[in-house]
Amino acid sequence: MKLAIYGYGNIGRGVECAVAQNPDAELTGVFTRRDSAQVHTQSGAPVFAASELDAHAGEIDVLIVCGGSATDLPEMTPALARKCNVVDSFDTHARIPEHFANVDAAARESGHVALISGGWDPGMFSLARLYGSVILPEGKDYTFWGRGVSQGHSDAVRRIPGVADARQYTIPLSEALDAVRSGSMPELTTRQKHRREVYVVAEDGADKAAIERAIVTMPNYFDEYDTTVTFITAEEMKRDHAELPHGGFVFRTGRTGRNREHSHTIEYRLSLDSNPEFTAGVLLALARAVDRMAKRGDRGCKTVFDVAPADLSPLSGEELRAHML
Amino acid sequence: MKLAIYGYGNIGRGVECAVAQNPDAELTGVFTRRDSAQVHTQSGAPVFAASELDAHAGEIDVLIVCGGSATDLPEMTPALARKCNVVDSFDTHARIPEHFANVDAAARESGHVALISGGWDPGMFSLARLYGSVILPEGKDYTFWGRGVSQGHSDAVRRIPGVADARQYTIPLSEALDAVRSGSMPELTTRQKHRREVYVVAEDGADKAAIERAIVTMPNYFDEYDTTVTFITAEEMKRDHAELPHGGFVFRTGRTGRNREHSHTIEYRLSLDSNPEFTAGVLLALARAVDRMAKRGDRGCKTVFDVAPADLSPLSGEELRAHML
Repeated sequence: MKLAIYGYGNIGRGVECAVAQNPDAELTGVFTRRDSAQVHTQSGAPVFAASELDAHAGEIDVLIVCGGSATDLPEMTPALARKCNVVDSFDTHARIPEHFANVDAAARESGHVALISGGWDPGMFSLARLYGSVILPEGKDYTFWGRGVSQGHSDAVRRIPGVADARQYTIPLSEALDAVRSGSMPELTTRQKHRREVYVVAEDGADKAAIERAIVTMPNYFDEYDTTVTFITAEEMKRDHAELPHGGFVFRTGRTGRNREHSHTIEYRLSLDSNPEFTAGVLLALARAVDRMAKRGDRGCKTVFDVAPADLSPLSGEELRAHML
Repeated sequence: MKLAIYGYGNIGRGVECAVAQNPDAELTGVFTRRDSAQVHTQSGAPVFAASELDAHAGEIDVLIVCGGSATDLPEMTPALARKCNVVDSFDTHARIPEHFANVDAAARESGHVALISGGWDPGMFSLARLYGSVILPEGKDYTFWGRGVSQGHSDAVRRIPGVADARQYTIPLSEALDAVRSGSMPELTTRQKHRREVYVVAEDGADKAAIERAIVTMPNYFDEYDTTVTFITAEEMKRDHAELPHGGFVFRTGRTGRNREHSHTIEYRLSLDSNPEFTAGVLLALARAVDRMAKRGDRGCKTVFDVAPADLSPLSGEELRAHML
């Protein structure tokens, strides 16, 4: 399958790496809204201006749209779904129905398949929630994130006066994980589920006590959590916090039996050294399924819930049944 | 959907419980090869002789075939797929391709959908292996079972002279789990992955040392494992070992990045108080998907790999996207 990347940030570079690990995928090009002459790909794949997409759309089986969910994807994905089959990683949960409707209309009109909200949450975590709910209909689910870097929280800290740089880690509390694993179906407050660690490089002469106070009391972002703030140097930030690890847990616990006497726990856990590269791995597999669905004549907007697992794999049905079932 | 159960053992009774937890499912009857007058269902659902299936096939959307994999299902599922849409839990991994071919021919000829090898292994564990392999194509997977009761190993011990009753637990070794979780992709021997615990009720006057020796040296079943044998009374067996817990772990670990510098671990874990009731929960959700596939005009043999996750849920696509994605 011939893939292209639209947007060459962390996820775009991750997709480029993923292509190198999937022999059935070929990268035909990277499209950028920056000056294409200034963008150089790691693999040597050609770089095109976003405006050149129309001229190349016929050569692309699936375009992987690597933009931000806040402002890029709500505009980009419907527009691009008019030109190509596309996959995106739209992750603003509350706006998924609206995004789905916009992309579905564009893809149906133009005869394409467009898969939205790929990645791990939404994505693999959504699948874990769905599978858990259908097997154990009388139960409860829990999602925990971390240990990992939250870009949104890191950005929020960087906007505080006196902060030169910041990195925020979300950390699930082991007491909460153990309580969930026990099958007791606890009710957990926000504070009981996660804590937050913030590493800050302060500007020269900044009031560190004021920065710390501004962080821990920040509404929505930090006020409902136990947060620790550690001031470090720019060198320490670069040395110890350059990576983007993440992960988390989805649990479903439920009861079965005539008298609901049996308890069951399903746990799906991710521990990721690189959030964008893992996300890219999911997007690549979804692109394979989109290519197959499009070639079978399917049309419109899809999510991970609509993808038969066999369509994600380069192996045939026979091979999958013989070696993986 | 109107379901029926064929075979009223542990899994059949589990399906009966699962129907009570799924408001869109109705149990039209239980078919048995025993004397139907002697079989009484927990729910009061009617019991029919297996020979009466032809007369009732038209009232059944999906028949859940609850037989053993060794001798029952290879014969039963193809024969029943000629009469109804069916789901089974065939779990002899090595014979899946042959079973698939037989069931596929029967289902295609008669115009039915037949899903084989539902449950958790094969089933949910197979899905974990497939999803893991497509996201992290350069990696390694590991399956561990337990802590749980292995019926096959318990039966093997019961055949030893002097053994009145036995129960065998398979236990994954925590050192192996930790080594896999670390992402180091260790090579593990059989002995390093699991140990076995056997509880035995000996007949009066039996030679316990001979029984223990016969167990720990038994080829294929025990000789490659560290096994502990504990002699208990019939009362202790009944009190402490009446349940059928099971579970296990599927891991996929792999590396990404230009220089494969990032490691990732995916872990799917089940902890089940009742193996047959959890298996039944999976079979019920698969029956829902089979019903939908059949009503859309699909035909032939399917596995979990062919089922779009949305088809497993009673919720609509809109509901799933709004609340579970």
